[in-house]
Amino acid sequence: MTFQKILVANRGEIAVRIIRACREMGIATVAVYSEPDRDALHVRLADEAYCIGPKASKDSYLNFTNIMSVATLTGVDAIHPGYGFLAENADFAEICESCNITFIGPSPEAISRMGDKSEAKLTMKQADVPVIPGSDGLLADMDEAVRLGREIGYPIVIKATAGGGGKGIRIADNEEMLIRQITAAQQEAESNFGNAGVYLEKYLTGMKHVEIQIIADKHGNVVHLGERDCSVQRRRQKLVEEAPCPVITEETRVLMGEAAVRAAKAVQYSGAGTLEFLLGPDGQFYFMEMNTRIQVEHPVTEMVTNVDIIKEMISVAAGNPLSIRQSDVQINGWSIECRINAEDPARNFMPSAGQIQFYLPPGGLGVRVDSAAYPGYTIPPHYDSMIAKLIVWGATREEAIQRMKRALNEFAVEGVHTTIPFHLRLLEHPLFLDGNFDIKFLEEHDVLDPKI
Amino acid sequence: MTFQKILVANRGEIAVRIIRACREMGIATVAVYSEPDRDALHVRLADEAYCIGPKASKDSYLNFTNIMSVATLTGVDAIHPGYGFLAENADFAEICESCNITFIGPSPEAISRMGDKSEAKLTMKQADVPVIPGSDGLLADMDEAVRLGREIGYPIVIKATAGGGGKGIRIADNEEMLIRQITAAQQEAESNFGNAGVYLEKYLTGMKHVEIQIIADKHGNVVHLGERDCSVQRRRQKLVEEAPCPVITEETRVLMGEAAVRAAKAVQYSGAGTLEFLLGPDGQFYFMEMNTRIQVEHPVTEMVTNVDIIKEMISVAAGNPLSIRQSDVQINGWSIECRINAEDPARNFMPSAGQIQFYLPPGGLGVRVDSAAYPGYTIPPHYDSMIAKLIVWGATREEAIQRMKRALNEFAVEGVHTTIPFHLRLLEHPLFLDGNFDIKFLEEHDVLDPKI
Repeated sequence: MTFQKILVANRGEIAVRIIRACREMGIATVAVYSEPDRDALHVRLADEAYCIGPKASKDSYLNFTNIMSVATLTGVDAIHPGYGFLAENADFAEICESCNITFIGPSPEAISRMGDKSEAKLTMKQADVPVIPGSDGLLADMDEAVRLGREIGYPIVIKATAGGGGKGIRIADNEEMLIRQITAAQQEAESNFGNAGVYLEKYLTGMKHVEIQIIADKHGNVVHLGERDCSVQRRRQKLVEEAPCPVITEETRVLMGEAAVRAAKAVQYSGAGTLEFLLGPDGQFYFMEMNTRIQVEHPVTEMVTNVDIIKEMISVAAGNPLSIRQSDVQINGWSIECRINAEDPARNFMPSAGQIQFYLPPGGLGVRVDSAAYPGYTIPPHYDSMIAKLIVWGATREEAIQRMKRALNEFAVEGVHTTIPFHLRLLEHPLFLDGNFDIKFLEEHDVLDPKI
Repeated sequence: MTFQKILVANRGEIAVRIIRACREMGIATVAVYSEPDRDALHVRLADEAYCIGPKASKDSYLNFTNIMSVATLTGVDAIHPGYGFLAENADFAEICESCNITFIGPSPEAISRMGDKSEAKLTMKQADVPVIPGSDGLLADMDEAVRLGREIGYPIVIKATAGGGGKGIRIADNEEMLIRQITAAQQEAESNFGNAGVYLEKYLTGMKHVEIQIIADKHGNVVHLGERDCSVQRRRQKLVEEAPCPVITEETRVLMGEAAVRAAKAVQYSGAGTLEFLLGPDGQFYFMEMNTRIQVEHPVTEMVTNVDIIKEMISVAAGNPLSIRQSDVQINGWSIECRINAEDPARNFMPSAGQIQFYLPPGGLGVRVDSAAYPGYTIPPHYDSMIAKLIVWGATREEAIQRMKRALNEFAVEGVHTTIPFHLRLLEHPLFLDGNFDIKFLEEHDVLDPKI
């Protein structure tokens, strides 16, 4: 079973990535684009391309009506949403279904269940996937708080359910402080958000962001493709990802992989997905969330497993069983991805849109470039600033790092600022080289400081 | 043990390839260039670069004195010759030795012994490596011819020892014809070359060009990295290479690999080298020659074995033992290389020098580009016409072919003609898809014929 024609409801490198996979599978492609993306690479590479609206995403890449019109008029069998935009939109997945067009991703139900954070946490707990210890949903009363504190230990973090982005968060080191802080947090939440609800979680430190790639078919088969370490983050944005994780033990890898498979099975998942975990220095790990889509960093997993995840997700969406069993999955060597953004790291990562005057990506052994950039391309200021993903493979982590430095040094982009200088500094940092950094790494260390 | 600084005595993509490997190994690089190569990519990427003469290769890339002057003045430990130019020049290897600079390649003796075709054949015969049956050196008299004809069977090819390039070759289907043709061949050779010497070889048909990559250290260890099929040739120039060979049996692969290792050991070989064989439809194979250098097509072997051959040859030249044993070598998946030449396939592959106006190499999963081209680069007419090697990896031959077609279609080169349209046609040809083509494939089939 295969599709004849797929609409790619995205832009940039991921649209190019999907078009490439379709080409290799003999599937025709339809690109859609906003007005400023008229000259984008995904438009040039697709078999057909249609404008779906003006620059604002809500009018183009999020425009259900226009996208479904193109899909219907061009007679596609399926839509691949990529990441971002409509990728985790259960309503869109449902509309596709009702139009008899396959949404390349999980069912609307699975998207919804994993999209609701508290429901997802409950589902995971029931599936015996470790979650961050804390209250089951909102805190009922102070008695529950005291009991929980004795059960899970201090410090404990109090979070306003209506809060977010670091707001409405307080930390308690002991029982007395907990009682005091809960009262204060509730009052603050009431006055700030008009909602006094708070919940408790164990306060975890020294955590790594480690995630498991899974892929599932519509026949109940699920395999995991090992882990990725995505702890190099700036303001919760991943900048560098690698596979495998430099500090995970084989035992934890197996446990985490099995937990990810249980999680996927618990929601009758199909397609590619990622279970994000926090991994502590003690080897304990906790479910954070599930991304029910392909992720930016999927290539590092492809490099160490030789599984083409996009092809596999297209194949399972068409109804085929997985082409691999768990026992086929071997982790070989090391892969690192650096996100090359059109930003000026010396000016607090200020976006740097404009025309690329000269462009020459690096090449040679072990170097992969996923990009929608080309010489003369004008980066529109309306979308995200990522212009390329530079991915390397090496036999060891050391070789991968050396190769990444070599490739970054070769990467020629003129006309806009890029994050290449940042990556070159990061790859020299002793903490990065050591591998034992946590998600606070970039918050606590200025890798651009010339003294280091 | 490692080198501090290496001089790369070459140009183009192989100079870039070597500089990349050195970078990743932390070794400084010195580039040399002819006047028209002033703006070449290898000059830009090296740590230092020096002009060694005008455009003619004999005055620059073959200029011992100038190259050794740069080597001495910059204080390099070693010289990597790449392929072509000085790569198989025993005199140059000897001069390096006498200057106490390591020549990254085998000993001058090994180069000489394999460079002399009749001595090489004798050495191989003694090492129990199958050679094409025929006279041992020059034919002594007609009695020997008749005896040989009865021994090895017909047809037999008669070659003038002073001939070459297809000249002075005659074929005999039986004894009577052999006697007649030898007399005619001797007379013709005498009048054409002033040398009546001829030798006999069994006339082989339906042969594939299959070669074995070996790598040896200075401690007597030799491993082979499997075979490459290089049967797609135009006027004895390889155009497409792949690993593994689509028709070889596991038994023949083992026998050929073992023969290659015996061959290398017979000449105390060290460094990277290639044993070229003819493989017949009956599974019999025969030694043709040994290339005592890195080859253009080495990347396909790297892609299926994950061995970085350039790094390994630098390491063994520095005196280190091989980092791999034979049992570590695993062939995984399939790799194909297309040589992208600046030639016009529609005009009998006429060279097409000039400026590259627009250049965007393909990217994504499984695609490797080894090239010295860049946007705005002017291809000098003085050297070979290869501007890029496009190499792909796939889990199967079918996937590799699909990926190559995808990548060729994406490869944007404007301003000069390239062989990309030729490759796209070749990859659709039923004989190529079948895999069972021989070295006469391009001679006997016009792959550009639109009717096919």
